[in-house]
Amino acid sequence: MKQRVVIALGGNALQQNGEVSAEAQKAVAEQVGRDIVKLASKYELIIAHGNGPQVGNILLHEESAASEGAPAMPLDTAVAMSQGQIGYWLTQAISNAFKREKKQRKVATIVTQVVVDRKDPAFRHPTKPIGQFYNAREAVKLSKSKGWEMMEDSGRGYRRVVASPKPIDIVENREIVTLVESGAIVVAVGGGGIPVVRTKVLKLLKGVDAVVDKDFAAEKLAELVKADIFVSVTAVPNAFLNFGKSDQIALGVLTTKEAKRYIHAGQFGTGSMLPKMEAVTKFAARGKIGIITTPANLELALKRRAGTIIQD
Amino acid sequence: MKQRVVIALGGNALQQNGEVSAEAQKAVAEQVGRDIVKLASKYELIIAHGNGPQVGNILLHEESAASEGAPAMPLDTAVAMSQGQIGYWLTQAISNAFKREKKQRKVATIVTQVVVDRKDPAFRHPTKPIGQFYNAREAVKLSKSKGWEMMEDSGRGYRRVVASPKPIDIVENREIVTLVESGAIVVAVGGGGIPVVRTKVLKLLKGVDAVVDKDFAAEKLAELVKADIFVSVTAVPNAFLNFGKSDQIALGVLTTKEAKRYIHAGQFGTGSMLPKMEAVTKFAARGKIGIITTPANLELALKRRAGTIIQD
Repeated sequence: MKQRVVIALGGNALQQNGEVSAEAQKAVAEQVGRDIVKLASKYELIIAHGNGPQVGNILLHEESAASEGAPAMPLDTAVAMSQGQIGYWLTQAISNAFKREKKQRKVATIVTQVVVDRKDPAFRHPTKPIGQFYNAREAVKLSKSKGWEMMEDSGRGYRRVVASPKPIDIVENREIVTLVESGAIVVAVGGGGIPVVRTKVLKLLKGVDAVVDKDFAAEKLAELVKADIFVSVTAVPNAFLNFGKSDQIALGVLTTKEAKRYIHAGQFGTGSMLPKMEAVTKFAARGKIGIITTPANLELALKRRAGTIIQD
Repeated sequence: MKQRVVIALGGNALQQNGEVSAEAQKAVAEQVGRDIVKLASKYELIIAHGNGPQVGNILLHEESAASEGAPAMPLDTAVAMSQGQIGYWLTQAISNAFKREKKQRKVATIVTQVVVDRKDPAFRHPTKPIGQFYNAREAVKLSKSKGWEMMEDSGRGYRRVVASPKPIDIVENREIVTLVESGAIVVAVGGGGIPVVRTKVLKLLKGVDAVVDKDFAAEKLAELVKADIFVSVTAVPNAFLNFGKSDQIALGVLTTKEAKRYIHAGQFGTGSMLPKMEAVTKFAARGKIGIITTPANLELALKRRAGTIIQD
C-alpha cells in the first residue's frame, strides 16, 4: 500500500527570476510537474500550494480597474480565482509530465474551502497585508467606505490588512480522499483555501475576508485525509539554525521535541520558515513524518536522504 | 439506479436585474442551489455553467490594469480563474441548500480542460468577441503587438475576436465520473472548459486562445460520462417557434427529426437558442433525452411535465 503524502508548494514556487507572466509560470510548473511525477509510483499524492504573488496581482487588477458595471471581486472569491488559475497550471503540467513518460494518471484540481472560527482571535487583530498600496488619503477613504483595516507597510504606503485565522476544517476533505483513493493526484487547498465560516444558526458556509496560512491549511488537510507524510516545499533545501550567519547549520533528522525547542528559541523567521516548521512539527507530533525540502529534493527527502525531517 | 443528468446553466444564470457584485451573484447561486438540491435524491448530477459576463469582467480588469510587474492573464487562464470563482459560488450554494434540509452530500468543483482540434476550421475564422472595447487606434496597436484579431462590434468600438472551436474531449472526464459515482454533485466544464489543444509530437496539453460554447462542451461531457439526460437551463421555459411573434409556440416534447427540421428552418436565434437546441438534439440523437428549461422548472421537466423535451 502506497504512503499518502501531502505536499505544500510555496507561493513563489512557480515564479523564478521574477518572471510573472502566465507563460513563465506555466514553464516553471512543467518542471514542478516532473518532480511530482517521479513520486507517483510510490506515493499517493495531494498537492497544496500558496498563491501570494498570484492573488496579489488578481486583487491589484480587480481593485484598480473596478467600476460599477465590473466591480472588484472580494478576497474569498479572489482566492477561488487563484485556485482555478494555479490549479489549471499544475494539473496540466502534471498530466504533461506523465505523458512524457508514456503514462497516464488521473489528475484533478478541487476548488477547496477552508473553515475558520469566526471567534478566532486573529479577527480582532488583522495582520496580513493584501492587495495594492494606497496613499494616506485613499487609505482613509477605503477605511470609511469599505470598512477595511489599513496599515502602513514597509514605507511604501498603506495596504489593507486582513486576519490570518487558523484552519479548523476542510470542506472538500471527503471529495479529495475519494479522488486520491481512485488513483488520482489531487491539487487542493490552493492559497490556504477559500476562507469561510459557518453561520451561527444553520451552520451555512459563508466567505470571509481573511487569509489562511497555506502551510497550516495543508497540514490540516494532511490530518483529515490521514496522510503519512506532510512536506512543506520551499526554496531552501533545509530549515537552518543561525540561518544566514557564518555558523548556520542545516537541520537534518530531528524529533518534535527538538523542533519545538528551536521554534521557541526564535530560530526561524516569522512569515517564512516559522510557519513551515510549526506546521510540519504539528503534523509529526501525531506520530507521523513532517519534512521541509526543495522540489528537486523531494524524492530523496521522502527516502530520508535529504531535507529537514521531523519524526519521533 | 439513479439516472445521470448533466445540467448546463446559462452564463447569465447567476446575474439577475443586472446585479454583478459577488454578493448579488452568490445570492442568486443560493436559489440555484436549492433548485438543484431538489433533484439530488433522484438523479446523479453534474453541473456545467457558462461564464460570459464573469470572464468578461476578469479580462476587463486583467487587461486594463496590466503592468510589467502584474501582466494580464491570457484567455485560457482567465477561463480557469472564472471556473474557480463560479465553481466556488455554486458548490457553496449547493452545500448550503443541503444543510438547510439537514442533509449532507459531497459537492465539488473540478477545474476542467476541454480539448479542441488545432485544425478546427474555427481557428481560421475567429468570430467570438471577448474582453473590453478599444478605439480604432488601440485596436491597430493590439493587432500588431499581440497578434490579436480585432473586429468592430455593435458600433461601440473594437473588440478582440477569438475562435469558437468544437470540443473533442474533456481532459478530466474520468475524475468527474469517479466523484459522481461516489455520490458527489460535481460542478465542471465551467465556461465551456479551459480551451487546450494536444501538441503534435508528444500530445501534451497546451492552452489556446479560444472560447468553447458551454452547451457544446457540456453535451460532450454528457456523452463521455454516459449521462441519461442532458439539460440546457436558460431564462425561458421552452424553445419557441416564431419566438417573439404573436403566434409563437412553446415547444413541448419532440423528436430529433422534428428538432432538426426547426433548426434548419432557422427558427432559433444564433448565439442564444440555436446552440442549445443543437446541443440537446445532438445528445438526444444518441438514444437519450435532451431538455431545455428554466432552473425553477428543472424538477418538472425531468418528469416530462415542463420544458422542451427532445427524445426519439
